[in-house]
Amino acid sequence: MCASLIFSIYNSDYAEKINLYYSMMDSESSNKDCLGWAARDPSGVLSPYNFTRRALGSDDVSLTITHCGICYADVIWTRNGHGDSKYPLVPGHEIVGIVKEVGSNVQRFKVGDHVGVGTYVNSCRDCEYCNDGLEVHCVKGSVFTFNGIDADGTVTKGGYSSYIVIHERFEVKSLKTKRFKASWLHCCVRDAIDSRDSLGSIATALYCFMIPNSYPLASAAPLLCAGITVYSPMMRHKMNQPGKSLGVIGLGGLGHMAVKFGKAFGLNVTVISTSTSKKEEALNLLGADKFVLSSDPDQMKSLAKSLDFIVDSASGDHPFDPYMSLLKVAGVYVLVGFPSEVKFSPASLNIGAKTVAGSITGGTKETQEMINFCAAKKIYPEIEIVPIQYANEALERLIKRDVKYRFVINIENSLK
Amino acid sequence: MCASLIFSIYNSDYAEKINLYYSMMDSESSNKDCLGWAARDPSGVLSPYNFTRRALGSDDVSLTITHCGICYADVIWTRNGHGDSKYPLVPGHEIVGIVKEVGSNVQRFKVGDHVGVGTYVNSCRDCEYCNDGLEVHCVKGSVFTFNGIDADGTVTKGGYSSYIVIHERFEVKSLKTKRFKASWLHCCVRDAIDSRDSLGSIATALYCFMIPNSYPLASAAPLLCAGITVYSPMMRHKMNQPGKSLGVIGLGGLGHMAVKFGKAFGLNVTVISTSTSKKEEALNLLGADKFVLSSDPDQMKSLAKSLDFIVDSASGDHPFDPYMSLLKVAGVYVLVGFPSEVKFSPASLNIGAKTVAGSITGGTKETQEMINFCAAKKIYPEIEIVPIQYANEALERLIKRDVKYRFVINIENSLK
Repeated sequence: MCASLIFSIYNSDYAEKINLYYSMMDSESSNKDCLGWAARDPSGVLSPYNFTRRALGSDDVSLTITHCGICYADVIWTRNGHGDSKYPLVPGHEIVGIVKEVGSNVQRFKVGDHVGVGTYVNSCRDCEYCNDGLEVHCVKGSVFTFNGIDADGTVTKGGYSSYIVIHERFEVKSLKTKRFKASWLHCCVRDAIDSRDSLGSIATALYCFMIPNSYPLASAAPLLCAGITVYSPMMRHKMNQPGKSLGVIGLGGLGHMAVKFGKAFGLNVTVISTSTSKKEEALNLLGADKFVLSSDPDQMKSLAKSLDFIVDSASGDHPFDPYMSLLKVAGVYVLVGFPSEVKFSPASLNIGAKTVAGSITGGTKETQEMINFCAAKKIYPEIEIVPIQYANEALERLIKRDVKYRFVINIENSLK
Repeated sequence: MCASLIFSIYNSDYAEKINLYYSMMDSESSNKDCLGWAARDPSGVLSPYNFTRRALGSDDVSLTITHCGICYADVIWTRNGHGDSKYPLVPGHEIVGIVKEVGSNVQRFKVGDHVGVGTYVNSCRDCEYCNDGLEVHCVKGSVFTFNGIDADGTVTKGGYSSYIVIHERFEVKSLKTKRFKASWLHCCVRDAIDSRDSLGSIATALYCFMIPNSYPLASAAPLLCAGITVYSPMMRHKMNQPGKSLGVIGLGGLGHMAVKFGKAFGLNVTVISTSTSKKEEALNLLGADKFVLSSDPDQMKSLAKSLDFIVDSASGDHPFDPYMSLLKVAGVYVLVGFPSEVKFSPASLNIGAKTVAGSITGGTKETQEMINFCAAKKIYPEIEIVPIQYANEALERLIKRDVKYRFVINIENSLK
């Protein structure tokens, strides 16, 4: 952490509130061994907070968190954006760390393994989606990594914290055409990596993911939400066809990963942006083939009917018709952002038989697949590593879209 | 034609205008051997009109029109709904008839064959879409069957007329992986029927379609627009999976065909309607499995997250979110109607990774496939056969949605 950053943190508006909580912690933290940073009210201001994680169960894995990515979801829930925030709220669902303890039934993970945890930590484990490795779509609702209600009734707390305990056991009743009821199937991620052929899809039906040792932990954090959020629909809509063309709208945490995946898939990638400020980085750092300024009618016209796919990661409101006009016949427009509404002319959809599809994060199976793909292809998110003490400023900067391209909190070196 | 219908026609507001045109025809029709009914101005009132079709070329087929379906497009263009109507305008793009003459190069069609013509009669024949049997998406634009500008600069005239001359020759440069430059490939539709295996996809790349003799000509007419408009996206989005569930919104010419195709594909079909007036027919005549009143919250709730597919053929404005909530995870919502806008919450799309897709009519290849499928499965549109003299009233009733489910003009017995 550079000196100027430290100065800005301790001279910020947050300092007084943070110091207050530090003093409170001293008196209340006797049995609360998990140190985190929490928002206490809809102001969303984060400050230190000691709390207790559940004791390690026989099917659990406990991990020391080394890094946690900062996602826009952290802004939304710390500030009660959906009206359902439960305070104190510890955000963070792009979690990576090192296994520090495993339950007695856990056979596949061992102390020292590098692992990641994404946007959910539990689900019913019994429905068609859970049994198909698509737990994000669990019919009873997956349990979000923070601000969720877990099976034991407790409110989940996220990765802006020193450690986390994750359910490891997964009773797979069926996986596609196969049938299993396998109490032994605790955690087979290593097998997914070591012996993909023999275990196949079973191996990835878990709530935490193996991160290959060769992959930097800090870089892995954004994969757990930003990465899977774009990878999942890109795979589902067959965007991994070399030679096809992809347009990427919105060049933030999600969008810049769409560019990287697009290039790894062999696509011709065009970044479409409202300003030229990211042009050079889009082309030279991220490797896009082309940059088009959406406010320039001539540039947009030159791109008309030329794209097979679009990934729209812009979270702000914007028109859809001009972008849909860039698609070829049967082109696919995937929305991963959350503008206030989606509105377009039926002609933009019907003429040319186009498709608009949506997506949120992804299932456990495809998440592990994505991590492995990133490791194999050496795809690394662009990150700005910050200390936990910078979290409030980082969230403010995220709101202003002042980040290239993902903040990652260095938990292990700053959260003490 | 029943007596009351004749009475209503000749006592209608249209009678005076129609009689005026009959008298005009006597003086002007010496060399104009094609009798049609045309709109002369944006009032859209149809009246008799004699005109000339081009002389039969060596690669043309001329057919005596026996029937023509009435599509909502006829309402739009006779009344200059898009501001581009060219009068006199002879509507009609659900044309069936009997071959009366063939050009010297035409080998595959013969006099007496039953054939159909759909929404377009020409295209560039050279682009990737034309060469893939998807001429509706021709990069230079397909030539619409009426109110279109054909290659020779003339304005096309539709099926509310006694005969039509259709380009038959089709130079196929490539069809998927195959390469052909085949002047002999005039019209191979019969081979598509007689010997599907040997000719495969080549055989259907034509602007008119073979109708099996067993299939009633009147019933075939609506297949050429209404039928292919729903069949094409249903096939493209893999709705032909027995046991899956389909919701159909809008029970007009298109929607009732979606129900019939859905049942033929082995789907569990639910008709979703704003009123109960069509409930009995939906269940008993069309064979739907279920009927849900969209204005009843309890009925809608009971259908939540239960449908794999929706075909939305409603042309009027309606909300999309309530219907999208009926889709399962990864459900597909196909729009074939043209409301004034499509608007929904991104949550309706993203949560559950849903897809909204659009479509217009279809390619020649799939049109012939659809006709053959209807013949094989004995799928017949529900039609109300009317004489040409009833066309104006029929268009008025169509606007009021007072039709079960498609008007078909009996050209051969009423257009004299």
